[in-house]
Amino acid sequence: MSDTEQQSPQNQASQEVDNAGKNFDGITVADLKAADLRLDNGSVLEDVTLSYRTFGTLNEDKSNVILVCHALTMDQHLAGDSPISGKPGWWSHIVGPGLPIDTDRFFVICQNVIGGCAGSTGPTSQKPDGSGVYGIDFPVITIADMVRAQNLLLDHLGIPDLFCVIGGSMGGMQTLEWAAAHGDRVFSAIPIATAARHSSQNIAFHEVGRQAVLADPEFHAGAYHEHDARPRKGLAVARMAAHITYLSETALHRKFGRNLQDREAVSYGFDADFQIESYLRHQGMTFVERFDANSYLYITRAMDYFDIAADHGGNLATAFQNTKTRFCVMSFTSDWLFPTSESIALVRALNAAGANVSFVEIETDKGHDAFLLDEPEMISTLSGFLRAAARDRGLA
Amino acid sequence: MSDTEQQSPQNQASQEVDNAGKNFDGITVADLKAADLRLDNGSVLEDVTLSYRTFGTLNEDKSNVILVCHALTMDQHLAGDSPISGKPGWWSHIVGPGLPIDTDRFFVICQNVIGGCAGSTGPTSQKPDGSGVYGIDFPVITIADMVRAQNLLLDHLGIPDLFCVIGGSMGGMQTLEWAAAHGDRVFSAIPIATAARHSSQNIAFHEVGRQAVLADPEFHAGAYHEHDARPRKGLAVARMAAHITYLSETALHRKFGRNLQDREAVSYGFDADFQIESYLRHQGMTFVERFDANSYLYITRAMDYFDIAADHGGNLATAFQNTKTRFCVMSFTSDWLFPTSESIALVRALNAAGANVSFVEIETDKGHDAFLLDEPEMISTLSGFLRAAARDRGLA
Repeated sequence: MSDTEQQSPQNQASQEVDNAGKNFDGITVADLKAADLRLDNGSVLEDVTLSYRTFGTLNEDKSNVILVCHALTMDQHLAGDSPISGKPGWWSHIVGPGLPIDTDRFFVICQNVIGGCAGSTGPTSQKPDGSGVYGIDFPVITIADMVRAQNLLLDHLGIPDLFCVIGGSMGGMQTLEWAAAHGDRVFSAIPIATAARHSSQNIAFHEVGRQAVLADPEFHAGAYHEHDARPRKGLAVARMAAHITYLSETALHRKFGRNLQDREAVSYGFDADFQIESYLRHQGMTFVERFDANSYLYITRAMDYFDIAADHGGNLATAFQNTKTRFCVMSFTSDWLFPTSESIALVRALNAAGANVSFVEIETDKGHDAFLLDEPEMISTLSGFLRAAARDRGLA
Repeated sequence: MSDTEQQSPQNQASQEVDNAGKNFDGITVADLKAADLRLDNGSVLEDVTLSYRTFGTLNEDKSNVILVCHALTMDQHLAGDSPISGKPGWWSHIVGPGLPIDTDRFFVICQNVIGGCAGSTGPTSQKPDGSGVYGIDFPVITIADMVRAQNLLLDHLGIPDLFCVIGGSMGGMQTLEWAAAHGDRVFSAIPIATAARHSSQNIAFHEVGRQAVLADPEFHAGAYHEHDARPRKGLAVARMAAHITYLSETALHRKFGRNLQDREAVSYGFDADFQIESYLRHQGMTFVERFDANSYLYITRAMDYFDIAADHGGNLATAFQNTKTRFCVMSFTSDWLFPTSESIALVRALNAAGANVSFVEIETDKGHDAFLLDEPEMISTLSGFLRAAARDRGLA
């Protein structure tokens, strides 16, 4: 591992983002450059860049760090304004001064996962040997690799351990991987709307999305960057299919029902007669403007491969044996992508491992995406858990 | 409506299919040619061909007719061997001599829906003006149009009414449309795993499938037949996405789990590492060999448009007011495509309309596809219902 360009929170290239009311003091955007990363597939990813954002101030004994792990299509811009979307970050209602993850108290870090397309090394990055962009030559990475990259970042920042690691969906997978593989660095963990392994149905939906991308002739076997092309249509179909799984049937019915889009009657054609069609098409079209198709393949694959029990002789409890981490597990009643049964299986294993674990199933009709929304019970649960954990750790 | 080539069960061009043990006496395969069909979109479809298959013998007073309505990707070959798949028909365990729909007692008819691709007029048919294949020039049809075409067939066969109309999924939609719009011709009706309107989520899944087809450059704006092409990849993706919705998560987990396909470890690549991936790819690839992409667009659209209540001032009960039809409604606990809540809404409306209705929710983990499978409770329920209805109608 190279340690050139090592940065600390004190000397990193901080870019204060200024955008009326959305940002706050203490936001930094930075890259850690030129680290080498050992991967699960046996290879070493050289000269990786790890893009991350921090919020708040690291305390003197470096004991107030919260790592937020992002989901499949998110990025490190969780609070303040996002330079990618131009909108407030995806958890800006949760992370900030005086908010549940209070940046006046905690030093919050969020790192773009490797394989992503928001700054960290991924398929859109230049290969170190100068032979161009990785594209489909990028190695297949895993959730464990993502977490190993986050460990690298902590090492470089000189942070010994995390007061808390938290995330929803794929962020929850990283949270669990942290606790299972690097438990000595994790005081507390909040996995939300997630699972200790990706289910058959979820692999199936990912495979549909990947096949939609692969079927697009603009994909050019993954080398679309060499053809000045992008598999927009395929990626849009992938996003549309995935987006359905993020919502509950109830939420879809409430939001759209069978309402028609800007018309009084059906057109007897294949236009977007229904609002739900128009909405999905919009979701597909906007997604392809902000996300890379190869990244989509790699990150969905990482999720498919995720199976903590398999990495520990088939027994999930073994993965957490003797853990000192305290856990707060949350699921949502209407989440059918990561249903409560997955959280219950996790909680059972944690209990079998003798872990300190609390579990809340939150009643909501908003489906999987509830973890991104202003869900009062989720917010009060994580606030209460953080408060108690901070007291236990002796944080002011 | 033209009545040239009108056929009756007695003189129709019967082709006895001979295939060891799979077929039985009294199977006929026939076409009704040259009828004109008025459509919901206001146009008239000229010179339609209606392909159908019959099983058993029409009794003297023509009171023993059961019409089976097929689902989205099925066809008229429900029993005996299918000339399309080369396999036993999709309900050959239910329809036949001595079987629950007993062809020794009943005269069973199944007609390929218009818009389909198994013989009835659809996008693959020649236009009557000799200007080639319909393709995307085919008019958008509805479930009501399909049922109107079935009424045409009954007229031509000289059959006054149906002892029973039965079907699952889209077949159940046709069953409900029969009862709502042609109730005087329906003694009893068995809608299975269906709904009186297509939900927002179901429209969403159909839209994903259509967009996958439309995104395929081999689609050629629907005129692929003119380019000696077929949008195989897009249609395969559509089928893969749809196929997931036909199964329950439990069934997927039981059948495939996270089992690997012909390998000991993951490949760190995008091959079909998991059995579920291999299975879905196979489903996609085999489907495109037997189904037309334009038909897929048209039939999914017909389902999306289905909303009986909307056709009756927004009140589902109004659609069935004063009905004399007796109903047997069935749903499956693990069917998330047409969940039990849809059947309950239907049953409530039927009760409000004063209908004679029985309702059974069948406990199974097999998902929506359960209606195609050997589900003992479904079979005993339909057998019992048919027995009682036959007694009420004075059938031997």
